[in-house]
Amino acid sequence: MTEAIIIDGKEFSSNLRNKIAEDVKTFKKERNVVPGLAVVLVGEDPASRIYVRKKEEMTTAVGMNSLSYRLDANASQQELLDLIETLNHDPAVHGILVQLPLPKHIDTPTILEAIDPDKDVDGFHVVNAGRLAIGTPSLVPCTPAGCMMLLEHSLGSLKGKNALVIGRSTIVGRPMAQLLLAADCTVTVAHRHTKNLEELCRQADIVVAAVGIPHFVKASWLKPGAVVIDVGINRVPAEDEAAKAAGKTRIVGDVDFVEAAKVASAITPVPGGVGPMTIACLLNNTVQAARNLTSAS
Amino acid sequence: MTEAIIIDGKEFSSNLRNKIAEDVKTFKKERNVVPGLAVVLVGEDPASRIYVRKKEEMTTAVGMNSLSYRLDANASQQELLDLIETLNHDPAVHGILVQLPLPKHIDTPTILEAIDPDKDVDGFHVVNAGRLAIGTPSLVPCTPAGCMMLLEHSLGSLKGKNALVIGRSTIVGRPMAQLLLAADCTVTVAHRHTKNLEELCRQADIVVAAVGIPHFVKASWLKPGAVVIDVGINRVPAEDEAAKAAGKTRIVGDVDFVEAAKVASAITPVPGGVGPMTIACLLNNTVQAARNLTSAS
Repeated sequence: MTEAIIIDGKEFSSNLRNKIAEDVKTFKKERNVVPGLAVVLVGEDPASRIYVRKKEEMTTAVGMNSLSYRLDANASQQELLDLIETLNHDPAVHGILVQLPLPKHIDTPTILEAIDPDKDVDGFHVVNAGRLAIGTPSLVPCTPAGCMMLLEHSLGSLKGKNALVIGRSTIVGRPMAQLLLAADCTVTVAHRHTKNLEELCRQADIVVAAVGIPHFVKASWLKPGAVVIDVGINRVPAEDEAAKAAGKTRIVGDVDFVEAAKVASAITPVPGGVGPMTIACLLNNTVQAARNLTSAS
Repeated sequence: MTEAIIIDGKEFSSNLRNKIAEDVKTFKKERNVVPGLAVVLVGEDPASRIYVRKKEEMTTAVGMNSLSYRLDANASQQELLDLIETLNHDPAVHGILVQLPLPKHIDTPTILEAIDPDKDVDGFHVVNAGRLAIGTPSLVPCTPAGCMMLLEHSLGSLKGKNALVIGRSTIVGRPMAQLLLAADCTVTVAHRHTKNLEELCRQADIVVAAVGIPHFVKASWLKPGAVVIDVGINRVPAEDEAAKAAGKTRIVGDVDFVEAAKVASAITPVPGGVGPMTIACLLNNTVQAARNLTSAS
């Protein structure tokens, strides 16, 4: 029994960010413009504040401008729309990210639709979803974009591979399926109503798990040699009894990693697999958006 | 060996058009508005002229207004864009259909994107593709919409069925996959690079063939009892030797119908299956668009 290659998303994303830093340098030299990412946070959610700070730090670290906007938790929807409108027209802003979740009195789809699709570096705008579906160039949601990079790094060409996506969310499963199809995979999308998941898994050269259930995908379901991408981030009690008793937790994926690593040819760990790719892809989208916006003008 | 139920698209679409005629009557009574479909034809392509005339006749037959616009084959892209802009703002027009193909000097995506998404009764606009991908209400391309009606008519709920879509075009295969996924099917999309098509076929409760290759799908590939939807419209030489010698042709589907009917539980014939559904779904989309547009105002 051979052990799978552990796909190191931390190292890969670090290399990607170095490459982006080079791209930013070249871009500055060629167009005399510094790509700018505006990050909007409404309210004081502690987890959101940590994410936002991390995004801002990494933006600065690759040489881009980070523009921070903070609105009070009680800010009205119109205030937020006004801010987005200003950012849409600000030539120093090439990417706009509104940190989710938003307070309940604000309608999230209305906000996401208000962002200029060409500055929508999260790839959540209906126009970018449509471009992806039609196959024209688009800003792609960051997590599936990162999964694709890891897959291509592991496999080279994906052409003709049988890919199974477990989960059909609009931010991971569905765009992931579109990207795999564009890469000439035969793509199956499974979900809670799927009846023969184990059988489908057993046929897949590529398994992308994005269901949000700890250790849902079992090693016995996998085809030997499959490449497994685990998008899950699930908080469970710590393994150590004392730590568990003290209320400590740990993060696990949607795949039974230890056992699956004995069957797969390559697998992403959780943490340290897909997770670190997301912000790197956000930065990558921002450079892409800056390229598109400055070449169009 | 039992013979499959032959799904009669001609009868189904005729019933659908009767239902639409009733909807139009109710709509007129309730809102004092007659739904209007504008059909734009550029040039003199004989096949396009026939399609357009048929659409216009059927529009009138269900009690809607049919508005015809004819542009010369030499009309400029700007002339066509100006016309679309006028139709976008015309309150008597609820649906706009630009007959494809367009002359080569006109950029088709530019034209399709110029149509107001809420009047895009062909469902080809990037915003409608995006709405479909995200799962918000949209105007759905007519052929896959028709296929879904026939499937639901045959099977009732599609929940948990294994559906295989062969072909990944933006006007049939891809939106078809989205619709099947929204109906809780487990969906696989296959195409020219798929390696194990026969095996995938054998697992499918639903097979939608949209490849454009005569008799491509063989009876031996099908799971007994599968429901088969044949989107193919392929012109081949006539069977009769004398007719063939005289250059006569006939229309066949993507499925080996005669043999497949011995294995499937239900199957659409070609012609007379999916084909007649397309215009009926166009009319259905127009009523839907009229409803949305008049309730919004």
